[in-house]
Amino acid sequence: MSFNTFGHMFRVTTFGESHGPALGCVVDGCPPRIALTEADIQPFLDRRRPGQSRFTTQRQEPDAVRILSGVFADPATGEQVTTGTPITLMIENVDQRSKDYSAIANAYRPGHAGYTYDVKYGVHDYRGGGRASARETAARVAAGAIARKIVPGLNVRAALIQIGPHKIDRDRWDWDEVTRNPFFTPDAEMAKTFADYLDGVRKNGSSVGAVIEVIAVGVPAGLGAPVYAKLDADLAGALMGINAVKGVEIGDGFAAAMLSGEDNADEMRMGNDGQPLFLSNHAGGILGGISTGQPVVARFAVKPTSSILHPRRTVDRYGTETELITKGRHDPCVGIRAVPVGEAMVACVIADHYLRQRGQVGEAPEWPFPKQPSA
Amino acid sequence: MSFNTFGHMFRVTTFGESHGPALGCVVDGCPPRIALTEADIQPFLDRRRPGQSRFTTQRQEPDAVRILSGVFADPATGEQVTTGTPITLMIENVDQRSKDYSAIANAYRPGHAGYTYDVKYGVHDYRGGGRASARETAARVAAGAIARKIVPGLNVRAALIQIGPHKIDRDRWDWDEVTRNPFFTPDAEMAKTFADYLDGVRKNGSSVGAVIEVIAVGVPAGLGAPVYAKLDADLAGALMGINAVKGVEIGDGFAAAMLSGEDNADEMRMGNDGQPLFLSNHAGGILGGISTGQPVVARFAVKPTSSILHPRRTVDRYGTETELITKGRHDPCVGIRAVPVGEAMVACVIADHYLRQRGQVGEAPEWPFPKQPSA
Amino acid sequence: MSFNTFGHMFRVTTFGESHGPALGCVVDGCPPRIALTEADIQPFLDRRRPGQSRFTTQRQEPDAVRILSGVFADPATGEQVTTGTPITLMIENVDQRSKDYSAIANAYRPGHAGYTYDVKYGVHDYRGGGRASARETAARVAAGAIARKIVPGLNVRAALIQIGPHKIDRDRWDWDEVTRNPFFTPDAEMAKTFADYLDGVRKNGSSVGAVIEVIAVGVPAGLGAPVYAKLDADLAGALMGINAVKGVEIGDGFAAAMLSGEDNADEMRMGNDGQPLFLSNHAGGILGGISTGQPVVARFAVKPTSSILHPRRTVDRYGTETELITKGRHDPCVGIRAVPVGEAMVACVIADHYLRQRGQVGEAPEWPFPKQPSA
Amino acid sequence: MSFNTFGHMFRVTTFGESHGPALGCVVDGCPPRIALTEADIQPFLDRRRPGQSRFTTQRQEPDAVRILSGVFADPATGEQVTTGTPITLMIENVDQRSKDYSAIANAYRPGHAGYTYDVKYGVHDYRGGGRASARETAARVAAGAIARKIVPGLNVRAALIQIGPHKIDRDRWDWDEVTRNPFFTPDAEMAKTFADYLDGVRKNGSSVGAVIEVIAVGVPAGLGAPVYAKLDADLAGALMGINAVKGVEIGDGFAAAMLSGEDNADEMRMGNDGQPLFLSNHAGGILGGISTGQPVVARFAVKPTSSILHPRRTVDRYGTETELITKGRHDPCVGIRAVPVGEAMVACVIADHYLRQRGQVGEAPEWPFPKQPSA
Repeated sequence: MSFNTFGHMFRVTTFGESHGPALGCVVDGCPPRIALTEADIQPFLDRRRPGQSRFTTQRQEPDAVRILSGVFADPATGEQVTTGTPITLMIENVDQRSKDYSAIANAYRPGHAGYTYDVKYGVHDYRGGGRASARETAARVAAGAIARKIVPGLNVRAALIQIGPHKIDRDRWDWDEVTRNPFFTPDAEMAKTFADYLDGVRKNGSSVGAVIEVIAVGVPAGLGAPVYAKLDADLAGALMGINAVKGVEIGDGFAAAMLSGEDNADEMRMGNDGQPLFLSNHAGGILGGISTGQPVVARFAVKPTSSILHPRRTVDRYGTETELITKGRHDPCVGIRAVPVGEAMVACVIADHYLRQRGQVGEAPEWPFPKQPSA
Repeated sequence: MSFNTFGHMFRVTTFGESHGPALGCVVDGCPPRIALTEADIQPFLDRRRPGQSRFTTQRQEPDAVRILSGVFADPATGEQVTTGTPITLMIENVDQRSKDYSAIANAYRPGHAGYTYDVKYGVHDYRGGGRASARETAARVAAGAIARKIVPGLNVRAALIQIGPHKIDRDRWDWDEVTRNPFFTPDAEMAKTFADYLDGVRKNGSSVGAVIEVIAVGVPAGLGAPVYAKLDADLAGALMGINAVKGVEIGDGFAAAMLSGEDNADEMRMGNDGQPLFLSNHAGGILGGISTGQPVVARFAVKPTSSILHPRRTVDRYGTETELITKGRHDPCVGIRAVPVGEAMVACVIADHYLRQRGQVGEAPEWPFPKQPSA
Repeated sequence: MSFNTFGHMFRVTTFGESHGPALGCVVDGCPPRIALTEADIQPFLDRRRPGQSRFTTQRQEPDAVRILSGVFADPATGEQVTTGTPITLMIENVDQRSKDYSAIANAYRPGHAGYTYDVKYGVHDYRGGGRASARETAARVAAGAIARKIVPGLNVRAALIQIGPHKIDRDRWDWDEVTRNPFFTPDAEMAKTFADYLDGVRKNGSSVGAVIEVIAVGVPAGLGAPVYAKLDADLAGALMGINAVKGVEIGDGFAAAMLSGEDNADEMRMGNDGQPLFLSNHAGGILGGISTGQPVVARFAVKPTSSILHPRRTVDRYGTETELITKGRHDPCVGIRAVPVGEAMVACVIADHYLRQRGQVGEAPEWPFPKQPSA
Repeated sequence: MSFNTFGHMFRVTTFGESHGPALGCVVDGCPPRIALTEADIQPFLDRRRPGQSRFTTQRQEPDAVRILSGVFADPATGEQVTTGTPITLMIENVDQRSKDYSAIANAYRPGHAGYTYDVKYGVHDYRGGGRASARETAARVAAGAIARKIVPGLNVRAALIQIGPHKIDRDRWDWDEVTRNPFFTPDAEMAKTFADYLDGVRKNGSSVGAVIEVIAVGVPAGLGAPVYAKLDADLAGALMGINAVKGVEIGDGFAAAMLSGEDNADEMRMGNDGQPLFLSNHAGGILGGISTGQPVVARFAVKPTSSILHPRRTVDRYGTETELITKGRHDPCVGIRAVPVGEAMVACVIADHYLRQRGQVGEAPEWPFPKQPSA
């Protein structure tokens, strides 16, 4: 990972600020001959797009993606496919409203990146958070839409499972429900609680955190590597790298610390398909940094946004103490829009490891092994 | 991060298996003219070394490190210093006991990496876990000892704060206590509880997980980068990449999901040193992926080892169902020895970002900024 | 170097095809607070731009660059500067003329990349050469304009020194002349010969190769690294990576093979500035892969373009034998426009190593060393 | 490429100095299940080993390689194979003779890396050249032996074609002859001339340069990538990165600058195997940065060593002017021992690109394409 590049074989370089002319990404290393048009990407951006309910920021951005390079409509088929060269995705910024940033131009929002950008770079595009804006995640979601097309049979889905103190009941988990409510939550009952709760938070000018769970099915066994390219390590880095994320878990996560070895071990039997059947999935689909073929399960916690109407004590870039209220359009719960972002990051990590595994090992070994090795 | 290389400017490539002739690492990118002998590294290895109490594996390894390259005793000073070329650290394996692995040669320990190695590579050095052995972390600890010498004023310490269901009382936190008990825990009272509890676990042939907290003070403000080189993202990847880790948190971690924006925001005042003074540290010393200058706080959860005396259902590499008990020398709580490993990984990440920041930005900008820019 | 990314600290990712909507690059790792507007970049693109004389392709492209991200007009100064975040440069394609590619859509131009793209990717955007078009080098030239601003005192200039069999007389070398003739050659006399010679080549529907020399002055001593990050190795890769380049030399290059050790060794004296004075520069400013502080001298050979009016035997993508003539707009000597590209690549390599050196070593050691080391 | 790591999927990190305890490399990314023992590597080291004729340095080094990690004798087959984990190769230094370096401890050999190391790092292991010693290339040769086993059907051979002013007659090229004379030259007649000429150079206490040609057959079509991962660019970097190399050519190299487009274009017909048949190979097997399937042809020029008995003017590290004669064991023509090193570097580059191509594209597309695309 370079400063703004993610991945090794499937590499995503994002660019752009909240209030610049455009943002986007360059996807390098994508395999050729994959059907790809804007229509494959736009639906994912639409899910992440703000302003779709009263629970997310009211900034109005069409987030229309445009493919600038890396595809070609093969005349032999008429179908537009990837060419193996870099795919550039651009999203123009439309609703910047650069009007009045005088309040935050110099004073740091507590909990926000303004101070660290200033002390690192000595300069900071403070308009809308600049590069630290959650708008950057649109580029990730766009890249994730391509990543999904690389691994055959892969299905990456995420769901919001907690807002503030309210956690879903996993027994009511219904994937269809995720598409029906504005919280991407699988628990229809809890969606009502979330709505009431967030209305209060919003009216109060406050904000609150959330927890999201990502589940990837169809991950081939054998992705990852023993030491520094562990699949779980790369997932942890990818998810912790999403704006405002403060915690990441794989499988049982922190709860695993309380388990005994015999409870934690996922026992194995032979499945009808001749492949191993795990009797549980405490490991979250990853052992020794390598995928087992079970669903890969990850969770991440999103902190509440620092853009709130409550006055907070702070300092400005000249070293003067002051107080700050953040007016303007904001998300009472930024965790909601992190759901499609989490999916995208997991898809990118898996696509990258899929290509790396194919590179190093080529065709997967046939398992189980024959008892008598061929001479 | 390549398969076995960690870091960008400060790069650590580890190698070696549990039962091969030696393990170690090559550290590339270390600045020159840093005083370095084996004596700077050995104490950290001695802390991680097994067999020092009844609570860790009884394998007896001196873990004596030898510097094979990258240092030179400058005749002008007589002092041995780094030369800027790759530093190779080698640790020979002594107590391998390759005797009897017939039980696990073919059958997979549930919860262990045997199956995933086989299905990925089609071959697996099963002796002592091969490359998946916790012995590999000795190389990380050795590299971490070098990393510590790179950032002036950096102090990275870790402590065990939970074993199974037993959590320390943070009001009793005493760093000196960490060096006095075999658990690296800062709570002397809890150390007794841990001892009793682990004796039970050990006698029962079971194992249990743990939680470790790492605190780095003296981290300069400005380390990290906005998007894919976020300091917290790299820390998360580094800690999740330690054997058996299933969860990582920065600052308040998962608890941040339950906070309101006003409670989570770390307010700022001006300190007497002319630098910002944060009134709290929910962020764990990182905002927008960049260090604030506050202590960097990370936590990680370690699952219980899968090497237990309880019979578990499993399959072998030929697809036959069987049961397995893991005999031999094992850790009832592998989390204990993960304490120095967590320190080392955090030190490596910070050293890497320190050099990257110096490379990109050079001298840090002077903060606070002058109100009237010089003409 | 990834597939389409160049450099380590100063990283340039280029994208785009000849006949897509746009091409450009993302520059990551650029230091912050460097003054940068389109006006800093455009002059370099204008030099490379086709259609400026009858000796280059008549394609009319304004090559107007637009900065999409990574800059900010600091209100404190009003000056637009880099922010340390990714700088995206976009150049729209205007004069694509996608009309009639039926001739080369299926048949491979001998000496061109069409066959290799097809056999690698199974698909190929043949319009104007697609990604293999020399248009991609516009993005490199744009990135080079930024690279030049990073190293204080650096001046990278290139000159064409040979076309076909005609070599310049080095005694007539005049840098000012380079800007006066359409060949970027420093020998005014030879410029006339080049003109006559190329008129003949052009009328004959043929093409011819060239040799370019790049000279960088103001390269600080100490850039590069002993083994795989040798400055000369990176320069060689960078220059050989320009379209149609078949040979690269540093300093005396191939002629060094004929020298004796005593003739080749650049003797040293002390200069009036207290720094070493080299009495010759056979080494081309690089010893052991590290810059000496002398001018860095590199040369590269460009083959003749394969787009010619002479019929050549070839095959098509269906395996049928055929003959091909390349009609349309082409360069009789693509080496001419490679001059600014060579400069740009050298500037990028030096900027990258400058940042890497600053990262690893920090402030350069003071040379000469004191005879008595301080206690 | 990091400072001391070469390659992307097939990654070689070398370490070690001339007079340290050992040198070697870690090979990461090697595919699993490749038969590998020391006996596969040693013959290549033996070819590079010094002291085998009066024309190379008389330093006596057994250069015995030891595999420290990454292999396992699979009990199912009894055969030792790679496991997919890092392979560490170690070669102990035996004949260091660290006795008397007082002459060169402080004074710089003109043409040698001593000054640049000092001015870069502020410290320099001058014993035997330290990290700049040609001994480092032993690690590359060892890695190359592994690289050769990765690409099925690959055969990489090199030959010395010029020493000083004496060039071979290509009509007398005989690969068998390369193994018969101490110069690795394919021209038996010229070998005699070389012997006489070098005897004179040696007795005169001088040194001389050389040119080596590397030819790789069995390189699959499709390796490389259009822009910054061009196969020729990576070869150029790899060969220029060998000690003392000053020039690199692919195919016709600098001579291509003098060719017309029609002479330079390699025409194509269909071969009996259903694959394209190129009627010439001016391109050296690479078009647009991607291999054509023809033999890959590269050449590189090696300068004469700066270690000579002739006094040369120089300065020392304290800024004092002086004269220097290099006594001790040296190569009159270091180009001779560069022959196996050139082979190794080319093998490593090709293996790396082979794995990268497999990663990105997977199975190669079938060429020629069907005229009627399947529905």
